[in-house]
Amino acid sequence: MIIDCKKAAQELRKADNILILTHANPDGDTLGSGFALLRALLKAGKKARLINNDEINKKFSYLWEGTECHDFKEEFIVSVDVAEKKLLGDGVCAQYGDRVNLSIDHHGISRLFAENTFCESESASCCELIYFVIKEMGIAIDPQTASCIYTGMSTDTGCFRYSNVTPRTHRLAAELIEAGADHSRINVRMFETKTMNNIMLERMCLDSLRSYADGKIALIAVTKAMLNECGTDKSALDAIKPITRQIEGVEIGITVKQEEGDKVGVSIRSSESYDAAKICANFGGGGHARAAGCQFSGKTVEEVSGIVVDYIVNTVIK
Amino acid sequence: MIIDCKKAAQELRKADNILILTHANPDGDTLGSGFALLRALLKAGKKARLINNDEINKKFSYLWEGTECHDFKEEFIVSVDVAEKKLLGDGVCAQYGDRVNLSIDHHGISRLFAENTFCESESASCCELIYFVIKEMGIAIDPQTASCIYTGMSTDTGCFRYSNVTPRTHRLAAELIEAGADHSRINVRMFETKTMNNIMLERMCLDSLRSYADGKIALIAVTKAMLNECGTDKSALDAIKPITRQIEGVEIGITVKQEEGDKVGVSIRSSESYDAAKICANFGGGGHARAAGCQFSGKTVEEVSGIVVDYIVNTVIK
Repeated sequence: MIIDCKKAAQELRKADNILILTHANPDGDTLGSGFALLRALLKAGKKARLINNDEINKKFSYLWEGTECHDFKEEFIVSVDVAEKKLLGDGVCAQYGDRVNLSIDHHGISRLFAENTFCESESASCCELIYFVIKEMGIAIDPQTASCIYTGMSTDTGCFRYSNVTPRTHRLAAELIEAGADHSRINVRMFETKTMNNIMLERMCLDSLRSYADGKIALIAVTKAMLNECGTDKSALDAIKPITRQIEGVEIGITVKQEEGDKVGVSIRSSESYDAAKICANFGGGGHARAAGCQFSGKTVEEVSGIVVDYIVNTVIK
Repeated sequence: MIIDCKKAAQELRKADNILILTHANPDGDTLGSGFALLRALLKAGKKARLINNDEINKKFSYLWEGTECHDFKEEFIVSVDVAEKKLLGDGVCAQYGDRVNLSIDHHGISRLFAENTFCESESASCCELIYFVIKEMGIAIDPQTASCIYTGMSTDTGCFRYSNVTPRTHRLAAELIEAGADHSRINVRMFETKTMNNIMLERMCLDSLRSYADGKIALIAVTKAMLNECGTDKSALDAIKPITRQIEGVEIGITVKQEEGDKVGVSIRSSESYDAAKICANFGGGGHARAAGCQFSGKTVEEVSGIVVDYIVNTVIK
């Protein structure tokens, strides 16, 4: 059933021994939402714990600092920022996917899986909704909880940069700073910290940068040798992928990267004029209109770069 | 005389044939402040125009789009975001520096030069103060003016990222979005667009990156030859300056750049543990605690780098 914020707060107020589920490959919004809710529930005297299918990056450690972990048989399960149950990750989905009592989310309601769902797709982050649920429960927001909520709001909006930001987003940010959210430290940690190794990788990627179609296409190629030389793993590539699209005049940015075995992955970011998902679908991949991906086997980075650029130049841009 | 917002608004309401001065090497805050004020004054039926000592980067063109330029003998001169008169730039300072009637600024009041000064150093941007002055004058903020004010607020806070952001900053951003500020496009333009030439410069700067004091200090050196080779001017360096401070473990980031004639400029960004303004004051410069600058004459980039690093290693870090 679709429910509103008030009903979601009522459900949580009635419940105890609460298990909080976050989505796999966890980001700042699912973790910020989950740990904010955990802190609020503990403060209200309930037993609660949070689990994630995957390892959590240590840059998020401040979210759970100082919380105690309860061991109990779960009686109520709530998921946060999880659009469909398979996004819980294989293990967590198999164990709990069909037993979720409440889903709090901001992705849209096309694949309902919980008994009750409180969802506002126009909310920039799930954390904005968690803020209102905690307020509705009558639990005061302490500085640590404020920092959790701020983290999701900031990371899901590129630090208040994207078009999903609304006046409400800014007003909540103001309240969270007043409640003690450690905003500037969080932003340094989330957005401004690169390891020296990542900087070296960035330099090598810029060295590999090529452009085509009068500058409409830019391509960066990353080999395993480059990652090894910089002492970084493929997670460092998240910072590389946006580079091509940020170049003035570039409509289609391509990152080609050597992966496990004989696999080569392709990430495409596009402007509003082109559909990255359609381009990738041509090679058996998919994704969003502005950001998509596909994978090749048995080809070199150089060969894949040529195939993808040729297709785009001859068929997409024309 | 130090005056408050109400008195500043009164002075502007009384005035006509108003010349608005912005600081040399103009950034988003001085231009956002200046063009917001220009639009408001024109809307109030006054004659006004804005000048800058230097060429204005074309990425800011939306700030003045649709404004008409009046030609008149100036009767009232107002400067915005100008901390001391020499920052007007040589030409403008010589012509108008001693005739400024009103200074609206957020840098602090150590070097007063105007007849009246309205300054709040705890304000994240000068644009925040301009918002209140325009409101106080009783002039409605239209979408274009909202975009001007938003530009200065966003650029002077690294898009709401830095520690200078206050709850007020976020609440004003909410009001400006409601007033029609084109926030996400402005942010793409200010933060996510780089020319291919700037990318090349970034690559060369990363090649020049060195670190000292167990990685607490990082330094980038930029020569005129590098700028020439990349076909960029010194305004491209704005994107370079934050790089050093983003490296994990770096407390003091230094950018040394060859300037006109025999001048060499130094920009310092620091963590909360160090005071960039104090470091620069030692060399006759100044600025904010987290971002400051100074200038040398008759020395090479290499020599200046050595002097600044030696001073920091021996006196500041210890």
